[in-house]
Amino acid sequence: MAILLLLLVLVPVLVAGVYVVRGRAVGNGRDGAHHRPGGIGHDQSYDPSPGVRYAHLWGYEDTRFEFCSPRIVQVTGSRYPLAGHELPRFIPYVEQLLDVAVGPDLVEKAAAIPALPAPVRNEPFLTEIEAVFSASQVEAGDEPRLIHSHGQLSVDEIYRILRGRIPKRVVDLVVYPESEQQVLELVRAAERHDVVLIPYGGGTNVSGALKCPDDERRMIVSVDMQRMSRILELNRENNWVIVEAGITGKELERLLNEQGLTGGHIPDSIELSTLGGWIATYASGMKKNRYGNIEDIVLEAVLITPRGEVRSMPLNPRCSIGVQARGLPFGSEGSLGIITRAVLAVRPLPRVRRYGSFVFPQFDAGVRFLRAVQESGMRPASLRLTNNTEFRLGHAVTPRSTWWQSVIGRLKRYYLLRIKGFDIERMVAATAVIEGTAAEVRQQRRVLARLSREAGGLSGGSEGGRRGYQVTFAIAYIRDFLNTLGILGETFETSAPWDRIGPITSAVERELAELGRAHGVSGRPYLSYRISQIYPAGVCIYFTMGFCGRGLEQPDRTYQRIEHRLREVVLEQGGSLSHHHGVGKIRQPFIHRAHSPGAIRALRAMKAAMDPANVFAAANNVFGPEQDSATHPPPPPPVHTEAEQAANPALGGRS
Amino acid sequence: MAILLLLLVLVPVLVAGVYVVRGRAVGNGRDGAHHRPGGIGHDQSYDPSPGVRYAHLWGYEDTRFEFCSPRIVQVTGSRYPLAGHELPRFIPYVEQLLDVAVGPDLVEKAAAIPALPAPVRNEPFLTEIEAVFSASQVEAGDEPRLIHSHGQLSVDEIYRILRGRIPKRVVDLVVYPESEQQVLELVRAAERHDVVLIPYGGGTNVSGALKCPDDERRMIVSVDMQRMSRILELNRENNWVIVEAGITGKELERLLNEQGLTGGHIPDSIELSTLGGWIATYASGMKKNRYGNIEDIVLEAVLITPRGEVRSMPLNPRCSIGVQARGLPFGSEGSLGIITRAVLAVRPLPRVRRYGSFVFPQFDAGVRFLRAVQESGMRPASLRLTNNTEFRLGHAVTPRSTWWQSVIGRLKRYYLLRIKGFDIERMVAATAVIEGTAAEVRQQRRVLARLSREAGGLSGGSEGGRRGYQVTFAIAYIRDFLNTLGILGETFETSAPWDRIGPITSAVERELAELGRAHGVSGRPYLSYRISQIYPAGVCIYFTMGFCGRGLEQPDRTYQRIEHRLREVVLEQGGSLSHHHGVGKIRQPFIHRAHSPGAIRALRAMKAAMDPANVFAAANNVFGPEQDSATHPPPPPPVHTEAEQAANPALGGRS
Repeated sequence: MAILLLLLVLVPVLVAGVYVVRGRAVGNGRDGAHHRPGGIGHDQSYDPSPGVRYAHLWGYEDTRFEFCSPRIVQVTGSRYPLAGHELPRFIPYVEQLLDVAVGPDLVEKAAAIPALPAPVRNEPFLTEIEAVFSASQVEAGDEPRLIHSHGQLSVDEIYRILRGRIPKRVVDLVVYPESEQQVLELVRAAERHDVVLIPYGGGTNVSGALKCPDDERRMIVSVDMQRMSRILELNRENNWVIVEAGITGKELERLLNEQGLTGGHIPDSIELSTLGGWIATYASGMKKNRYGNIEDIVLEAVLITPRGEVRSMPLNPRCSIGVQARGLPFGSEGSLGIITRAVLAVRPLPRVRRYGSFVFPQFDAGVRFLRAVQESGMRPASLRLTNNTEFRLGHAVTPRSTWWQSVIGRLKRYYLLRIKGFDIERMVAATAVIEGTAAEVRQQRRVLARLSREAGGLSGGSEGGRRGYQVTFAIAYIRDFLNTLGILGETFETSAPWDRIGPITSAVERELAELGRAHGVSGRPYLSYRISQIYPAGVCIYFTMGFCGRGLEQPDRTYQRIEHRLREVVLEQGGSLSHHHGVGKIRQPFIHRAHSPGAIRALRAMKAAMDPANVFAAANNVFGPEQDSATHPPPPPPVHTEAEQAANPALGGRS
Repeated sequence: MAILLLLLVLVPVLVAGVYVVRGRAVGNGRDGAHHRPGGIGHDQSYDPSPGVRYAHLWGYEDTRFEFCSPRIVQVTGSRYPLAGHELPRFIPYVEQLLDVAVGPDLVEKAAAIPALPAPVRNEPFLTEIEAVFSASQVEAGDEPRLIHSHGQLSVDEIYRILRGRIPKRVVDLVVYPESEQQVLELVRAAERHDVVLIPYGGGTNVSGALKCPDDERRMIVSVDMQRMSRILELNRENNWVIVEAGITGKELERLLNEQGLTGGHIPDSIELSTLGGWIATYASGMKKNRYGNIEDIVLEAVLITPRGEVRSMPLNPRCSIGVQARGLPFGSEGSLGIITRAVLAVRPLPRVRRYGSFVFPQFDAGVRFLRAVQESGMRPASLRLTNNTEFRLGHAVTPRSTWWQSVIGRLKRYYLLRIKGFDIERMVAATAVIEGTAAEVRQQRRVLARLSREAGGLSGGSEGGRRGYQVTFAIAYIRDFLNTLGILGETFETSAPWDRIGPITSAVERELAELGRAHGVSGRPYLSYRISQIYPAGVCIYFTMGFCGRGLEQPDRTYQRIEHRLREVVLEQGGSLSHHHGVGKIRQPFIHRAHSPGAIRALRAMKAAMDPANVFAAANNVFGPEQDSATHPPPPPPVHTEAEQAANPALGGRS
């Protein structure tokens, strides 16, 4: 009991990082307090103003990581809890992990962006849409054209643009429709005049889906959906809301929260990504366990194709109406049409939210804990497990401690490392978000504490948990900062059955080290990972990978080769092509490992029926340039053969 | 408190019917006791022997409702708890509700079934498949041909066959493949020789999906999947099992139960219906709240089409791989290919199962209770609410009471009707199945009891709940019995948003009474209904409808007209085409009210790519004879127009 008390006092602040939140709003209700109206949004909505987005980098212009002295970085602005703080542990962490020197003298200045090639102009099309769109709904300048021609792929897109290398083909025009009627007319005009449309949501895509095909000679129009962001109908009795697809996650939650509701879809990109983009990429949110993934939250989406609207009707909770077109917008990645609106399930804001954190001596023990939670039937809104490297990253992005904090920190270290015998180089942390009624939350916290103990872990208190989730939102800013230092990095993810977690993570670790050596990378590559979702059949593994490109002839090419090979390793070890980032163009070479040839043929035939002129020529996932399926034999079937079956009577069966 | 105690003693046996279970297995663990291996299966598996199915009627040959005296019916055999019992209340119930006389003198003898037309024989095809299938795998007799040419539609199929009226077109041959390889070869041969294949599972379809198109001139082969019923692989770590699609629900649960597992899919047809059939019709099981509907339980299904296998890979808990073909087998209703196997999520058998029942003074109060449960976030495995007529049906199919039971019965009646003031003509009952750990079950029972009180109801104990579920399995036998008396009846269902429950049920009630009069039906039509599933956005409403056809010129035609009009009413009032029975052929005239024209075009194009020769010519749901969509204008969009939106500022939104 004494130890438990000690833990309750000491551990909380250590896990996943220690920092003081300067200037934090008083009583913002985010730390387990009962809900006050408007007080529980997504955690990063500290500043409700939409802010100005940076042209190419991730996020808001006011927020950057930057050197404030040769060894210390700070976060600019006042948008996030970390803002204004110096982070003395960050540079040492990067140097230690990558085994290269890092300093302000190594920062590369962004190169000037060259003028874009003159746009392709389809005059009859332009004349026709002039009657539909006002001048304020159309942009033709170089900057908007370039912004709308890329997503947020760290290397293929951002790294290159910062070095003045622009894509071979960029969009020729950007339009901002304001109603479904305008979308219909735009699509009609595009088909009539043989113009290409590429839908654009928040611009946060990380699969190359927004890239224009290099050889597209037709006029390409980016359809930016940001002005279609209204809530059209809120039905409290049926717990649904009908929303235009261009709304950002942040705005959607703000509007719902005002009504005491939540949609519960909280991806890391929530500030910028849109409802339409979520559907088009099969997005997954942090609180999946409670609210579901996007396909669970969206009851129905309307997809406007050149050959009409695709949807089911009337609205209902579930139906059996033959093969359903309801699934078609999901994963369409801009290649089938424009998603204009969707019906979302909404739920009351939880009365209580608590965070939890748990430390384990090593990763395996953490996985045992996750499995036990899955099997308990209990569903904390979120549950994650970071590996040791990512656990230490959490610590690395914490501000300088006060004297008192460092005393506490040392005490905790002593307790964990000396008394409990944890190894700082091996220990890992799990973090949880728990939402519901007071009774539900109490019960879940009790069960989580018990299961973590049974798996050999220690409960780490709620503060650590909360901060663990906040670090998530810093990752993309860190990526952009390291990018300027010539350090290339990206996240990639996969879903994996429970029995493939070990094989996948260790194969990726091994292969990356090998690839670093083979490609002559200075120092060593960085790899951290977390399990970000649990399911009855397995998990989502979320990797962060990077290395220093200095000294390499073509760092971006090296990066591509390494990334490609790692994806291959993931697939070889039984992981999926992607858990929620999607296929886009960068994972297209592996598409034959995700769909059987018969499935690809069926999907392509469907696309041809919906869009015979290929207006939606973004050419993502199965809709890319046709590859010869003979050169891509499907992998062996996922079940045992009859011979294997016969050899293993334990598999059961009648005959 | 005294009242509560009284209730605990008195109410249980009343609710949803009272009968003694003679010869019930001792300690079969079905009544809330802790699980003993093999003890918890689906409730109707009293006899593990597969039994002999009756050729055309529902279910097993040993089980029938029949008159044992002019006013009393009994259930034959020993398969079900009701078997061997006399049911003195049943005939009076039928007479009262239908307002017609019923007696053994009115039983029509089944007519002789005429010889079938000579089969179409495609000799090159027959020669080719002789090399693949042994003689024991092929049947060409009249009886198997007729059996495989219908499902269990009460009027369109069973009523007519009992009167010697056979379908215009029947299958020409029945084959029983025993492996996926044989299915592949069969499909290849069928395409090569222009032969039609119609997949056949348990023969329990109730949408006309098994009906052969009248004008099909090619040879039609029924592909009976019953011999592909093995468990191919059981993966305990990933909680999944790979199973051949011809397995019946009963056999699947038996095999899984032996391993301490369950699939959790428990449709009313579980004894006979198959895994492949569940997928092909978008089935829903009684325990949906805990285990999900079929699309939640099936991780992946393999569909063999003439242009290759449709599936995703590798197996994983969830993925983002572009548009997914994973959904295509669902709802395919035999029109796309043959489902050969599927990967199902499995879960440990629950440690505890309890039943619950609750009575409410009227239907609205029951609906309030269901909504409160839905909003509580708590998920009893099953929760149903029967209307007053269906509640009384439960009572009508109970055996003669002992002296002691009738004393108790009278006491309970007195308490409910006199003390609590319930009206026997208005009161309704909800029943629940609660599964999980002892703690979960305890907690759920507590919450259910509280919520039922808050909605104005009374807890009715577990025995009533258990029996409520057993009555479900008698319905199809009752239907067949009444059929022989010239009483036509059928169930039909819909999903509906919460705010459409009242409008749909009252419009159907009103319209049926009206239709009965308009068509000159003797007595009055029968209508009972229950809410059989709850969702965040609404419910499934399950209707049982019937009327006496005596004196009508063409009772079956009258039935069709009435049924058609009622479906129209359901759609007009915001219900869906079907919640889980599917579309098949009988709901095809309404297909344009379920899918937008663009969706239908896309789905048909996909079918053309998968099956260009139309081997799978069953022509169900959107794959029926093309109708002119100009004559089927789509209904108004499901959202408010901008004008309505503007007129209602409460709908919110930015602009």
